[in-house]
Formats: sequence, C-alpha cells, structure tokens
Amino acid sequence: MVDRVTAAVMIIGDEILSGRTQDTNLSAIAKYLATYGVDLCEARVVPDVEQEIIDAVNALRTKYDYVITTGGIGPTHDDITADSIAKAFGVTAPEHPEIMAMLRERWGEPNAARRRMAHVPEGGSLVKNPVQGPPGFQKDNVFVLAGVPAIMRGMLEDVGPRLRTGAVVLAKTVRVTGTGEGVIAAPLEAVAKAHPEMSLGSYPFFAPPDVYGANLVLRGRDAAELDTAVSELISALAEAGAKNVELLADPA
Amino acid sequence: MVDRVTAAVMIIGDEILSGRTQDTNLSAIAKYLATYGVDLCEARVVPDVEQEIIDAVNALRTKYDYVITTGGIGPTHDDITADSIAKAFGVTAPEHPEIMAMLRERWGEPNAARRRMAHVPEGGSLVKNPVQGPPGFQKDNVFVLAGVPAIMRGMLEDVGPRLRTGAVVLAKTVRVTGTGEGVIAAPLEAVAKAHPEMSLGSYPFFAPPDVYGANLVLRGRDAAELDTAVSELISALAEAGAKNVELLADPA
Repeated sequence: MVDRVTAAVMIIGDEILSGRTQDTNLSAIAKYLATYGVDLCEARVVPDVEQEIIDAVNALRTKYDYVITTGGIGPTHDDITADSIAKAFGVTAPEHPEIMAMLRERWGEPNAARRRMAHVPEGGSLVKNPVQGPPGFQKDNVFVLAGVPAIMRGMLEDVGPRLRTGAVVLAKTVRVTGTGEGVIAAPLEAVAKAHPEMSLGSYPFFAPPDVYGANLVLRGRDAAELDTAVSELISALAEAGAKNVELLADPA
Repeated sequence: MVDRVTAAVMIIGDEILSGRTQDTNLSAIAKYLATYGVDLCEARVVPDVEQEIIDAVNALRTKYDYVITTGGIGPTHDDITADSIAKAFGVTAPEHPEIMAMLRERWGEPNAARRRMAHVPEGGSLVKNPVQGPPGFQKDNVFVLAGVPAIMRGMLEDVGPRLRTGAVVLAKTVRVTGTGEGVIAAPLEAVAKAHPEMSLGSYPFFAPPDVYGANLVLRGRDAAELDTAVSELISALAEAGAKNVELLADPA
C-alpha cells in the first residue's frame, strides 16, 4: 500500500450558504493538494457561528491529516475564525507581535477592529500572505486562510511546502458520448473490480436536448497499472457496444 | 420570534473533492431555498463511500429540518446513494415499481446496472424528473436528487412545494469601495448590536492591484427594520469617514 495523506476543507461563511457567493476555493484547494499527493476527503461549509466552527474543525482535525479553512479572518464582527479555532484547541488567541508590527507600519496604532486580525492561537505559526492584508496561520494540522480567492490562492503557496506529501494520484479520462450509463456500468464495474487499488468514477454529462454521455475517470498511483486499466476499459466498452469512446488528453 | 426552517445540503461525489468538477449545485439550492424562507445552515461534500454518506446524512437529518443531497443516483458501481440512504434509515431499498415501469418502457427489460436506478428506500416517495432519466426521491426529511446540474434543477421544482416554509429573508447590500474593513468594522458592529434579530455580514472584495472594499449585506425578515438598519449603517459609515458608500439595487 502506498502511503495516503488526507485532508479536509472547511469553508466558513454565510455568504456561501445564502447562495450570494459562488465558492471557487474548494476546487482550487483540491487541485493544489493533488499536486502534493494529498487526498481531499471531505469538505464542509459552515456559517459564521462560533460553536459550528469549533465543532466542525474538531471533527475534521481528528479524522484527517490536515484541515484547510477559508474565510472569516478579517477585522469585522463576523470574522470570528481565529478565536473559534483557538477555542477548538482549548487555547487563547493573543495578538501576534509580527502581525501587530505589520498593522502599525500600515496604519499607525491600529483600531480595535484591526487588532482582531492579529489574533493567532497560542503555538500557531504564520502563513505568508503575498497579496494583501495580514497573514493566515497554521495551528498544528489546521491551516487558516483568507476567504477572498485571490488572497487565498496566494496564501496556499506557503501551505504546500509544510505538508507531508503522498504519492501523486494520476488520472486519465475516457469519454463516452451518445451512450448512456446503463450500457457503460457493467464494463466499468468489471474493470473496477479487477483493480481494487484504483478509483473509477463515472461522471455523466447532459446538455439539453440531446447531448449526453459520461466521463469515466480512472485514478491510481501506479502509472503502468493505470495504462492497463484504461486499455481494458476501452476494450470492454467496445464489446458492450459503446460508440464514440475516446481517451482524453491529460490532465484529466 | 419568526419561525425558522432549516436545511443542509450534502453533495456526494469524488469529482468535486478531486477538483475535477466545479460545484454549482450548492448555490442553486441555496437561492431556491431562500425563496421558500428556508435557511441553508450547513453543507458537506462527501466521497462516494457508503459509510461516509451514512454518517453525514444521519448527522444532518437529525440536526436540520431538511436535507437535500445531490449526486450518485445513476446506474454505475459508484452510484451508491439510494442504498446508502436506505441504510442510514435502517430500511431496505427495493426496486420501485413506477421507476421499473419507466425503465421497461425505455429499454425493455433493463439490465442489472439500470435496475439500480430503481432503488428507493422503503417508505420513500418519488421526486419528479422533468428533464431526463429516472426520478429522485424523498425519504422522510431527506430529498435525494441527481448531480448533473440541469437535472438537479429540474428535480428541485418538485421539492419546494413539499417544504414547510418560513418567513422569507430579505437582504440589502451596501457597497463600500476604496475603504478597508478596518474602518468599516466599528460602524457595522454597532448596527449589528442594535439589531440582534438581523444578520450583518461583511464580504470583502479585492481585484489586484488596487480595487478593494466590501459588500455589507444586511439580512432580516422584517422589511421596516431592514430599511432602518440600512439607513443607520450608511450614516455610521459616513461618520467613520468611509467614501463611496452605495446602496445596491435589489436583489442583494
């Protein structure tokens, strides 16, 4: 068995739950983690409510190797992430001297609201913010990043080098057009059974009124086995009568 | 206190966690529920793994009035949602006669893979699919919908009329451009404290290199109180020195 490193994402913010904002951070983080061979196993979106944040981060940090949170670390009253994470760990969140120095350089003596941005749980280390505003932080296996996508992605660059990395998952996609999943299912299942270490998924697409089919994604950590499984699947699909089977160009 | 009706969304699918697919169902469901006065309180993304689906749906269906799931109800081996939901409720998932009839009409005697699409937990009722393919279902307070966005949205139209509805939340957005959250925080917090029944959120935006500011979203179920709070906030922001304060046109 290849070593598996796992992670969860926790998106903090009423604006995602109200439908006001379309989240894009989850897929950005997923793709980033994949390049480090870290499997994103679960994601949660929680509101700006202290107890909800505490419960979710405690559930996730004990279950997975890493947790990455986004959102709720600015200066306003609804930005309660740093204090909530500290409570989840049972520690306080004092003003971090480096962040206080940055704030003073920017604004002179910062007001009470801006001082909130300096809160970092005891024992936490800073995560660089190359874009704008104060840094994020790491507390044990939890990384706390900003919610604004441009800033989140900047911070993420300081997360990867700190991760214990796994073997990178390779993926290939076989696209079947004009054939339904009902025909595809049996060959796909047969190949999945023959390769228990791999993951095979079927992702149907449908563009009204009449374009339909499925992307069959094969994932594994062994390049040779991946190629074998792809060949087996393409043969099995042809035998089952599927037309318009194509191996898509990498990356999947 | 106005009656509050709550819901959670559970997105089932490795393709979201791998970053391969950008989820759009969450915000579509959030907006749809809002029109019925139902508050979306939490969302989870879980992999195509039976025990993960069971644990998540059991956690959510006992905590919120409703749960809406998307994904994993097709015919392939990774489409295990219906059987997993049945196990979460401690019931079986026999072939539903109406779905079997639809499948027979479409394909003659359906193969084993397609018969999977007819699995519905005992005591479940069907959710209409006006687009393509088999229906979804409702089991108690859990609605199980397809993952393909066009099909999911079609099914959603049969969900709303079954919900106990709450008072619709009204929202207004005050946009502040060129002023940071550090200045905005104090006036926003003062208005939030004066209106404890309302929710006030600050959603910063940042477009490199130099466009920045925040959308301040005020939400409440009382239209008169909402207007009062908006006026108070605009005055308080002006007093705090914020420039470029504008009330955005509805809807927020």
